[in-house]
Amino acid sequence: MAAVQLESLEKCLERHVPPEELREVRRILYGKETRMLDLPLCALETAVERDFELKGLGFEAAPEQLRQPRIVRVGIIQNKIVLPTNAPVAQQVAAMHKRIGDLVEAAAMCGVNIVCFQEAWTMPFAFCTREKLPWTEFAESAEDGPTTKFCQELAKQYNLVVVSPILERDEVHGETLWNTAVVVSNSGHVLGKTRKNHIPRIGDFNESTYYMEGKTGHRVFQTQFGRIAVNICYGRHHPLNWLMFSINGAEIIFNPSATVGDLSEPMWPIEARNAAIANHCFTCAINRVGMVMLFLCVKAHRDFGYFYGSSYIAAPDGSRTPSLSRTRDGLLIAEMDLNLCRQISDKWAFKMTGRYEMYAEELAKMVQPDFEPNIIKE
Amino acid sequence: MAAVQLESLEKCLERHVPPEELREVRRILYGKETRMLDLPLCALETAVERDFELKGLGFEAAPEQLRQPRIVRVGIIQNKIVLPTNAPVAQQVAAMHKRIGDLVEAAAMCGVNIVCFQEAWTMPFAFCTREKLPWTEFAESAEDGPTTKFCQELAKQYNLVVVSPILERDEVHGETLWNTAVVVSNSGHVLGKTRKNHIPRIGDFNESTYYMEGKTGHRVFQTQFGRIAVNICYGRHHPLNWLMFSINGAEIIFNPSATVGDLSEPMWPIEARNAAIANHCFTCAINRVGMVMLFLCVKAHRDFGYFYGSSYIAAPDGSRTPSLSRTRDGLLIAEMDLNLCRQISDKWAFKMTGRYEMYAEELAKMVQPDFEPNIIKE
Repeated sequence: MAAVQLESLEKCLERHVPPEELREVRRILYGKETRMLDLPLCALETAVERDFELKGLGFEAAPEQLRQPRIVRVGIIQNKIVLPTNAPVAQQVAAMHKRIGDLVEAAAMCGVNIVCFQEAWTMPFAFCTREKLPWTEFAESAEDGPTTKFCQELAKQYNLVVVSPILERDEVHGETLWNTAVVVSNSGHVLGKTRKNHIPRIGDFNESTYYMEGKTGHRVFQTQFGRIAVNICYGRHHPLNWLMFSINGAEIIFNPSATVGDLSEPMWPIEARNAAIANHCFTCAINRVGMVMLFLCVKAHRDFGYFYGSSYIAAPDGSRTPSLSRTRDGLLIAEMDLNLCRQISDKWAFKMTGRYEMYAEELAKMVQPDFEPNIIKE
Repeated sequence: MAAVQLESLEKCLERHVPPEELREVRRILYGKETRMLDLPLCALETAVERDFELKGLGFEAAPEQLRQPRIVRVGIIQNKIVLPTNAPVAQQVAAMHKRIGDLVEAAAMCGVNIVCFQEAWTMPFAFCTREKLPWTEFAESAEDGPTTKFCQELAKQYNLVVVSPILERDEVHGETLWNTAVVVSNSGHVLGKTRKNHIPRIGDFNESTYYMEGKTGHRVFQTQFGRIAVNICYGRHHPLNWLMFSINGAEIIFNPSATVGDLSEPMWPIEARNAAIANHCFTCAINRVGMVMLFLCVKAHRDFGYFYGSSYIAAPDGSRTPSLSRTRDGLLIAEMDLNLCRQISDKWAFKMTGRYEMYAEELAKMVQPDFEPNIIKE
């Protein structure tokens, strides 16, 4: 682990690099500057009282003659677990509901239209333990479990869309478990659910001990505030996963995640941002924060590193927000004009020049057992 | 354009960020630290005399029991044009041959096994002009043009593989033009050629004024030093292009490019590096440097911005080298153990978890005229 624990990369650079060079460093690292949002005092005070970071940035688009701007405020939340992992399950869940409720209240003060939480947000990220009880008790029905009901209340109360990634118990299909995101409309109705398409089998994290690859495909949810999709965690490593959500029309793709420092931190700022660029859409990368001590496991994993937070939002023009902190709970708000997606698509034209017929054919060939790679030898 | 022109991001950070924080900044930005190579004094002196930057870094892999390390030294070259763009064509080409010959000599002193030049390296990047003569006179036969012969001499003299991206004149197919990379084996034989798969139509750069999408597919070249492929310029924006080279077995993918500051600089560090991560391979991103004044064009494009150099090499584990300068000619050398590719593939398993059958089907559907996106509405 690193000798110095930075609270955030951006704060470190701000502290040391002189302003005129800092502007150029930011342009190279983060693209066109995002505008600071003027957030209401009550929200800023709430953030101090409840001890979380609150940040608001804006992305611009050019005015058009025939389309009105389609301004939407998106909020993403990163947070630690609240109670120790050996507290009773119901208490742990209740404490997480309370904490998220507090942050969503601040989001609502800031006029957020769509909010998304981190992966499997009601529970500690216990999938490295390989233990079943009590962790599987955190699983709930996506359609009418207590967490979905809680999100429906939030949605109605604050008139916002809630993306709620949970561990799902599917009663209808043999009581199987899934890693699922529930999308609740601002009307309070469950718009639907979408499941994690790619399941990691990395080191201690073979999540297929608990759930398998989702079969919900690449559905996109038409909300009142724009078309959204959810690419859960490990799916961010798969460019085709992002692509298919985009091809189905997603303008914002959320990536609720849980990933630790030594494993993935240098990849984190690259992948979701590359997806925003490659697919002419916005992407929202959400990671947990904090150490997780998993008290029930017998030997390993009492400390499996720290979730480094650093949640951020990237735009189709290659720009991005600064990150939330690497260490604290936080709410990051981005105001975006969704017209930017088509504007950038018209400019860079990756879909027009994508040659998908060729790739459909090449992929169909490569999955055949007798596939022969195209290698030229001397 | 920016108020301050940084020579490089890394030098700016080194100047201002204190050492212990700099280590952490580098880890977050660039991943596992690359090792400085000990380059021979004669090469370092040559770089000073001939006024180019010379940098050498090493990537490590774990030792294996059954495979020897497969160490290869790759050199990538970024450079300005040498003569003004209104000099006679033959003189411009000869001056570029001389310049590149000088840099390759230094590469050979450093034990480089494979060297790659920038896109359309024998000519000014004139495709924004929309003029034909004299620019099309820079086109040559890939098989036996003077530039290919020059590269064959280099290859034999220094026992290295040369990747030579040129403007190709295809005599056999109606004297058409192509944007092509010629791969010359270290034996001096032309191993083959590969063409740019995706052609930009962006702003002033509609390169389809000159050449169209290549039909050479995603061939990979088996050299004595490893399996290589070439993803030319705009193809770096297309994740599927990188993927298919990788699926055909590429361990190193070169991306010879020509791109200017205001358009693409914040995307530059993201795309090739994402490709290295997503495909468990090494990628080499090569850009030109310098302003190009195109004297023959009537009105526009007397100054169409600056090529910002910043060439770099990225590894499958998410790490990368620092960049070459944003303003100077340069030779970047990376020593890599190609065993790292399979080691990272075994660790992260993106190909094993890629679900390509699903994507082959989805892509085959999406190219149909009656494709209906999968959108869920309330």
